[in-house]
Amino acid sequence: MSKKWNLPEDRFFDNEPAQKRIALEIYERIKNLPIVSPHGHVDPKLFANDSPGFGTPSDLLVIPDHYIFRLFYSQGLKLEDFGIPYRNGLQDASEKDHRKIWQHFADNFHLLRTTASYTWLAYEFKFIFDIDEIPDSENAMRIYDNLTEKLSSPEFQPRELYKKMNIEVLCTTDAASDSLKTHQEIKESGWDGKIIPTFRPDAVTNIRGENFRQEIEKLSAAADIDIHDFESYIRALEKRRAFFKEMGAVSTDQAVITPYTHELPQSETDRIFKAALNGNVSDSDATAFEGHMLIEMARMSCNDQLVMQLHPGVLRNHNRIIYDKFGPDKGCDIPIQTEFTKNLHSMLNQHGNNPNFTLCLFTVDENTYSRELAPLAGHYPSVRLGPPWWFNDSWNGMTRFFDSVTETAGLYNLSGFVDDTRAFPSIPARHDVWRRVVSNWLAKMVVRSFIDVDDAYDFAFLLAYSQPKNVYKL
Amino acid sequence: MSKKWNLPEDRFFDNEPAQKRIALEIYERIKNLPIVSPHGHVDPKLFANDSPGFGTPSDLLVIPDHYIFRLFYSQGLKLEDFGIPYRNGLQDASEKDHRKIWQHFADNFHLLRTTASYTWLAYEFKFIFDIDEIPDSENAMRIYDNLTEKLSSPEFQPRELYKKMNIEVLCTTDAASDSLKTHQEIKESGWDGKIIPTFRPDAVTNIRGENFRQEIEKLSAAADIDIHDFESYIRALEKRRAFFKEMGAVSTDQAVITPYTHELPQSETDRIFKAALNGNVSDSDATAFEGHMLIEMARMSCNDQLVMQLHPGVLRNHNRIIYDKFGPDKGCDIPIQTEFTKNLHSMLNQHGNNPNFTLCLFTVDENTYSRELAPLAGHYPSVRLGPPWWFNDSWNGMTRFFDSVTETAGLYNLSGFVDDTRAFPSIPARHDVWRRVVSNWLAKMVVRSFIDVDDAYDFAFLLAYSQPKNVYKL
Amino acid sequence: MSKKWNLPEDRFFDNEPAQKRIALEIYERIKNLPIVSPHGHVDPKLFANDSPGFGTPSDLLVIPDHYIFRLFYSQGLKLEDFGIPYRNGLQDASEKDHRKIWQHFADNFHLLRTTASYTWLAYEFKFIFDIDEIPDSENAMRIYDNLTEKLSSPEFQPRELYKKMNIEVLCTTDAASDSLKTHQEIKESGWDGKIIPTFRPDAVTNIRGENFRQEIEKLSAAADIDIHDFESYIRALEKRRAFFKEMGAVSTDQAVITPYTHELPQSETDRIFKAALNGNVSDSDATAFEGHMLIEMARMSCNDQLVMQLHPGVLRNHNRIIYDKFGPDKGCDIPIQTEFTKNLHSMLNQHGNNPNFTLCLFTVDENTYSRELAPLAGHYPSVRLGPPWWFNDSWNGMTRFFDSVTETAGLYNLSGFVDDTRAFPSIPARHDVWRRVVSNWLAKMVVRSFIDVDDAYDFAFLLAYSQPKNVYKL
Repeated sequence: MSKKWNLPEDRFFDNEPAQKRIALEIYERIKNLPIVSPHGHVDPKLFANDSPGFGTPSDLLVIPDHYIFRLFYSQGLKLEDFGIPYRNGLQDASEKDHRKIWQHFADNFHLLRTTASYTWLAYEFKFIFDIDEIPDSENAMRIYDNLTEKLSSPEFQPRELYKKMNIEVLCTTDAASDSLKTHQEIKESGWDGKIIPTFRPDAVTNIRGENFRQEIEKLSAAADIDIHDFESYIRALEKRRAFFKEMGAVSTDQAVITPYTHELPQSETDRIFKAALNGNVSDSDATAFEGHMLIEMARMSCNDQLVMQLHPGVLRNHNRIIYDKFGPDKGCDIPIQTEFTKNLHSMLNQHGNNPNFTLCLFTVDENTYSRELAPLAGHYPSVRLGPPWWFNDSWNGMTRFFDSVTETAGLYNLSGFVDDTRAFPSIPARHDVWRRVVSNWLAKMVVRSFIDVDDAYDFAFLLAYSQPKNVYKL
Repeated sequence: MSKKWNLPEDRFFDNEPAQKRIALEIYERIKNLPIVSPHGHVDPKLFANDSPGFGTPSDLLVIPDHYIFRLFYSQGLKLEDFGIPYRNGLQDASEKDHRKIWQHFADNFHLLRTTASYTWLAYEFKFIFDIDEIPDSENAMRIYDNLTEKLSSPEFQPRELYKKMNIEVLCTTDAASDSLKTHQEIKESGWDGKIIPTFRPDAVTNIRGENFRQEIEKLSAAADIDIHDFESYIRALEKRRAFFKEMGAVSTDQAVITPYTHELPQSETDRIFKAALNGNVSDSDATAFEGHMLIEMARMSCNDQLVMQLHPGVLRNHNRIIYDKFGPDKGCDIPIQTEFTKNLHSMLNQHGNNPNFTLCLFTVDENTYSRELAPLAGHYPSVRLGPPWWFNDSWNGMTRFFDSVTETAGLYNLSGFVDDTRAFPSIPARHDVWRRVVSNWLAKMVVRSFIDVDDAYDFAFLLAYSQPKNVYKL
Repeated sequence: MSKKWNLPEDRFFDNEPAQKRIALEIYERIKNLPIVSPHGHVDPKLFANDSPGFGTPSDLLVIPDHYIFRLFYSQGLKLEDFGIPYRNGLQDASEKDHRKIWQHFADNFHLLRTTASYTWLAYEFKFIFDIDEIPDSENAMRIYDNLTEKLSSPEFQPRELYKKMNIEVLCTTDAASDSLKTHQEIKESGWDGKIIPTFRPDAVTNIRGENFRQEIEKLSAAADIDIHDFESYIRALEKRRAFFKEMGAVSTDQAVITPYTHELPQSETDRIFKAALNGNVSDSDATAFEGHMLIEMARMSCNDQLVMQLHPGVLRNHNRIIYDKFGPDKGCDIPIQTEFTKNLHSMLNQHGNNPNFTLCLFTVDENTYSRELAPLAGHYPSVRLGPPWWFNDSWNGMTRFFDSVTETAGLYNLSGFVDDTRAFPSIPARHDVWRRVVSNWLAKMVVRSFIDVDDAYDFAFLLAYSQPKNVYKL
């Protein structure tokens, strides 16, 4: 007989009775607050008039979720068996039968236990899809059929789910040259959901990229500016930012290997940019250029007040075999050591005191929490700390974060939660974990008399709802 | 209506009842022990016959405390509004009305909640100044007047407060060329408080310093030695150390960027020293020289048995705008990654086995606790670990410290608490947090049967009182 | 009156009653499982027909245990007084009277309190040797006599203790050129204990070693291959691995400063190897060669399926004075920062997807747990995470490990426990700490509803017994 989910109202909380009671009181006040999602990777197309919907259960929960299939892969299972498609142009050996994919997923579901993904999936099955049983070999097809039926029903279409999930605003991530046509359509459709774009210039700032020239051509076209030197390049970026802002964007986002910043003289930026256009740029020039571009982006943020998000420190596509066959975002991105104090020195000295500038810092290197990030956020008026990101977006990861940064930076220098997910139905699951950690952590502060219970209520509301709206100007 | 402080006797302790009961029993035994303060930055002038006293409430609690105003600054408030004075020579736009400063402080006091500074201030208001209300906009002037009255009364003068706080000994920090005149006066005044100096040679060992030549001239004058080469420089330092020791000093202190040590041949030290005197020293020469000087200081400590304190790893004055306007120590010092194993190799190989040598290591990089510091302290007879420092001088910071180092280094290789503060009334607050952490942590060890309750009593006394006296030879 | 050990059945567990009850239920099920010890440094000679036995109590518990005497040394006691012998050829000033050594040990035993070693010794005294009293100055000789009597009785001989400890398999560590004669003798003796060798090639892969040429000659002789170039060197290694495998070996082990890997062209490996044979190798060549050899070892593991163990990041013999007098393994090995993501990139790209390859990673740099090791293990099918090693093989060290890696890597990517000890009687003590941490940690997961109690029972069995058998193919 299949096991059922056991998700009591007091789950995850520490078991000390006095603390748990307070945690539940705090949680009760914030659990139903609207979800503010200032950064993530959900495809806006989902919410367009011609929404593709969620597809099959495998389309929704298995094939696109590299958080999950990397764990199966780590246990010796093949990505092909989970239906992960090959890169364009390669002959695809991956499973096409979505029932088989689901059966394989359910057969191995137990391997996920104790991971953050397991916690999110539990929530999704139980509270989004009202499925009581934990997937296993025996119930796999039953659950598949149940889900299939639901996914074809009107109430499980993306716009309806968005409402059911009580999302107030959802930010997507969009290339600098994106036309934002989908966003325009959603706006014009009369639907009252709030889906707004985020300016992500990585493809046009990473001058090492294989397709850099083509990306610049796309940017050129999108901005309607002939980009032939650094000056026209900057002008095009500024114009695109202005367009994104017009379209509702409140922030930018950059994923960089290191947060190194250093200003170059104009002659240098011009020389390197032109060399890059010719596909002819040295490693040291590329590093210098990227360090300069972060300062340029900060400068633009001071002008247009788009919040600048920085997600550094991940070595993408560590496993070349997987990358060559399946492409990027396949669970083989591995963090590296990150340094902020020296790297951000130049940028913060130029713009860190500017009242119009907000810099949200994220990290996958927890060692920087107490050493660098909390002291930086506890001084610079521009700096806010994003919540634990990616591998650290988990119960223990979040708890360590609060324990490590708040004594130095306080709570007002945090950004609140950012789910950063491409898995749409995981959004309320992730926010729920955050709200539970917040409740548990604040209750522990109350029970030890660091703060009183009214402080805790204030902070819970701040961290669950008002702070991300405030920091991201939503 | 203003809120009142809620500081019950069992505050901060974990809430598990059996553990808390033991924690309270331990705490009861150590809470009233005299305070031993082997290192800090309190101005000795406070205790001289012509003591300036504490000034206004703003003078005492706001204007000098960069732990606090950095947090206000991080929230977009202006340092000027907290009365932070500009550097010498700059036209000062900072608030001069101390009532207005206090009102602004109280208006924003809530921003400090959850930080270590909030905990200390709570103690100071409630237990030092007997003020029940938490500062806010409404009660600000009432509290100001109350404090003003107290600060002008005989019992709140520095010497009286020193006694009331039950301080047994308080070490100050003094430049190598300091005349120690104030210390001499205090000694001769007949007052029985024990205020002793600490030898801090940073100004004359940091050969990169803008005023290095003037600092050497001051040293020359103080030592009455014509410093013209490395040999006379070393002689002057030794002479000053001897003088400090005569005046009661038990230790030296150095703040360095990295704890790099490496011995240079004499010809090199001489060459570099002379170049530095001419203001003409390369970065690599300066690094090499500083690495050599740490070994020289260790050698001198082997001879005169002054305890050597090392505080590495802080990049000072990260925010140039603030530094240029307000000067150093304004809350913009940010930690960097620190490495001890390789950096101290040379020094410890020369002096680490010397029974006359005591090296107290501090860090703001917690990542070194279990990896480097505990193994070093768990082997070298000279090495002792200072308590969590600066950003880590907090409840969670201390708890992480004990959890990280004791299984490898034991408790006998720790130095006990060092408050390292310039905020005199925060001293008992900080020691109280330490004593509470110690009680809570030992109680947890008892309740889990790692040690018994008698062990816990021994260790509590050791960590709260006898160990710093022993390590610092006080 | 001497104190007695207080080691209740629920020791070490967190004190929250509901959690402790579950922890005890879990522990009850795994505490008596056979011990699987896939890696350690016990001398196989102990189990040969002509076993030397354990010697005196000082031979057994003091003289060989650098975990312990380093702590005494750190407190200013002399290694000589604990009978630590000088290196070959040096006139030995160390104590020879084992009663005096024991008295000195007992006099200072209290210094060990709160360390991991204290916990292990407690178990050994109480549960292996049935000694109730904690060693002290007064009872020292009584305990010595008691132990002496036991150690000479039949039931305390190594083979009998092996059975009493319920060891199922014990892996030793053996040089690449070792004849494995002792292992052969044990096999042929008819005794049914399972003692198997591990291939440790450090002496012949560390081309910087003083005795590299002699080590290669030994390897040459052992493999019966004339090693004169890189190709013959590799052939010899492969032949020795085949022999080890024939003799029961399931794994290899390498201790490297950094896990740097990078493939060299054949001309380079040959050039550097020959230069090393002539004692003439540059630092950068040595680093490059060692980086290449890790990839060679991985390649061989893909072929012969021996599990590859990597123990990087310890700077051995940090204290030159101690090393010169007493030799290696004297408690002066200090960890350094370790980087895995970039360093293993080359090796994992070549062999990390190979289903025949198992790479067990260990670290003494906990900062890599959540940042690098969990993400690597959570993706590459070849990677498994060894348990906390050396300084982190302790209650808090293990707890931090589980809290840091499981949300990203799950539990199936761990290797289970590896005691890695040369102190034979500490084996059950160390496994007991692991089993208790596992029980406590899983109970905490249950009580917070992350997993249910049946999951916990499964995982407890996995982590305590089946997983090391599975990962190490035992």
